[in-house]
Amino acid sequence: MSHKADGDEFDRIARFFAPLAEASDGAMGLTDDAALFETAGGRGTVVTADALVAGVHFPENESPALIARKLLRVNLSDLAAMGAVPRAYLLVLALPEQVDDDWLEAFSAGLKEDQESFGVTLIGGDMVATPGPLTLSLTLLGEAGEQGVMVRSGARAGDVVFVSGTIGDAALGLRVLEGELTGPDREAADFLCARYRLPEPRLELGRRLRGVARAGVDISDGLAADLGHICEVSGVGARLDASRTPLSPATQAALDADPSLMEVILGGGDDYEILFTAAPEREPEIMALGGEIGLQLTAVGTILEGEGVAVEDGEGGEIVLNHPGYKHF
Amino acid sequence: MSHKADGDEFDRIARFFAPLAEASDGAMGLTDDAALFETAGGRGTVVTADALVAGVHFPENESPALIARKLLRVNLSDLAAMGAVPRAYLLVLALPEQVDDDWLEAFSAGLKEDQESFGVTLIGGDMVATPGPLTLSLTLLGEAGEQGVMVRSGARAGDVVFVSGTIGDAALGLRVLEGELTGPDREAADFLCARYRLPEPRLELGRRLRGVARAGVDISDGLAADLGHICEVSGVGARLDASRTPLSPATQAALDADPSLMEVILGGGDDYEILFTAAPEREPEIMALGGEIGLQLTAVGTILEGEGVAVEDGEGGEIVLNHPGYKHF
Repeated sequence: MSHKADGDEFDRIARFFAPLAEASDGAMGLTDDAALFETAGGRGTVVTADALVAGVHFPENESPALIARKLLRVNLSDLAAMGAVPRAYLLVLALPEQVDDDWLEAFSAGLKEDQESFGVTLIGGDMVATPGPLTLSLTLLGEAGEQGVMVRSGARAGDVVFVSGTIGDAALGLRVLEGELTGPDREAADFLCARYRLPEPRLELGRRLRGVARAGVDISDGLAADLGHICEVSGVGARLDASRTPLSPATQAALDADPSLMEVILGGGDDYEILFTAAPEREPEIMALGGEIGLQLTAVGTILEGEGVAVEDGEGGEIVLNHPGYKHF
Repeated sequence: MSHKADGDEFDRIARFFAPLAEASDGAMGLTDDAALFETAGGRGTVVTADALVAGVHFPENESPALIARKLLRVNLSDLAAMGAVPRAYLLVLALPEQVDDDWLEAFSAGLKEDQESFGVTLIGGDMVATPGPLTLSLTLLGEAGEQGVMVRSGARAGDVVFVSGTIGDAALGLRVLEGELTGPDREAADFLCARYRLPEPRLELGRRLRGVARAGVDISDGLAADLGHICEVSGVGARLDASRTPLSPATQAALDADPSLMEVILGGGDDYEILFTAAPEREPEIMALGGEIGLQLTAVGTILEGEGVAVEDGEGGEIVLNHPGYKHF
């Protein structure tokens, strides 16, 4: 969610900013969710930053506590995808005049709630005035594990592609919030909106996948797009079987009512589930892990030689996505 | 410069955000320029973040390369004040539609120039769209030295207060840019504006002051205000002798023409010089250090028991500042 910009941002990043990152191994060409910062003699510091803008990434009148928690969680999700342990964060706020103390109090309460849940603490930042919309950015620092981190570039032909949780809920939730999807009943609509508004970073899964998965990413740009990111930096292709995509009951019901929503489900972002690849012989271990941590893990595709992501409909046809997701660095 | 907001931001930070930082020793109550992030077994990572907003912290039409370099330098100055060695940074850009590739190219060229000068490298970040003004934030990571870092809270009664370089140039430069100060001739005006537009982070001085100075801060809120910050967190007071403030020839000439500018000189920010305190017996060593690194170091005051900063005019009178500088965390 925090990564949305024009489709050519990825090119701009490659062109203007990746050259600035060449000297750092830890920057990994700016293609990963977080950067590894090696300190002398110590375990690596893992650091990520994401921004949210009012009216772009959340409605102007969104609850301040939810904004705070989402800001923290989209960053936590980046560390989850690296298998890192989050520790501390810096917060940068550009505040319009109308943001008052009540707003800040609710905002800080949201932060407090989530920092206690996730074991992180604020350590610094900046606060400035802006004549524009509320703009927030957060830098999250964490620690790499003894086995290092999980990166995007490790996928190999033959790997199985797995995904955690269910896919498409957040994209449908956004459509509900925007009034574009009116079919779901109240309970289903609430579920979908909650999935959009407050993602659940998969930190435990990420930590447990270190040394098990070969490549991983959190789904912020869409299942197909984020698999594409893994393929691009790993130098491989992939086949995604759309019929195996894990769907919540609410999303399944919406899809049954309107099969064209499959494109939104596969192309929309903001689920913040973890997409990862592993050697086929790891599958039993991975299924057992899912049971152990109480999180559905589903095999949805295969890594292939070549390039690009082919999305199959499970009946021998191919689905062409017109909306391949957003880009970021 | 990046710290400007309403005067009550400091209270808001103390009220809403400092409680969120209590669990971290390295956050130092959010009163320092940068936070120390201890990794297991390793030397500390030092991290800081600052933001700039178009129309607030720089003119809308400012050169993109200068914006980039200033953004990096205000953060570098924070690490200089801690005596840390800068290593890597994350960049968060909220871009309005009218920012085009030419702009980004010039911006990234400015970053490249300064990252080569200062030995840092981009390692990550985020890029989002905004309907508001261009908003930039940067998180800079560095390494603490073997002797740790220089913090604000170490000042003791009896310490001498020193300052690097010359004071007031940036504040007068801003007035020149805004058309409020027209007295300086072309050469003087250019000098003052350059001091405002492109600060020089005092990294070498900061590193050399580790183990020598007791407390340090970079001057971003104004000489008097930043000395006040040191006093507040150190639990001491201070006397500042305005007549000993080191002035550039351009600022001296402006002051001679209009003695009321002393308040601007002492109260204005953005010089990004280092203000530090040390035991009196360290003075010869400090003077020698200034000679060695080619940077003027001047004793401008004394730390006292008590609280608050008294600004004396050198003739037995006291100067009352109506404009005590901006607050930030």
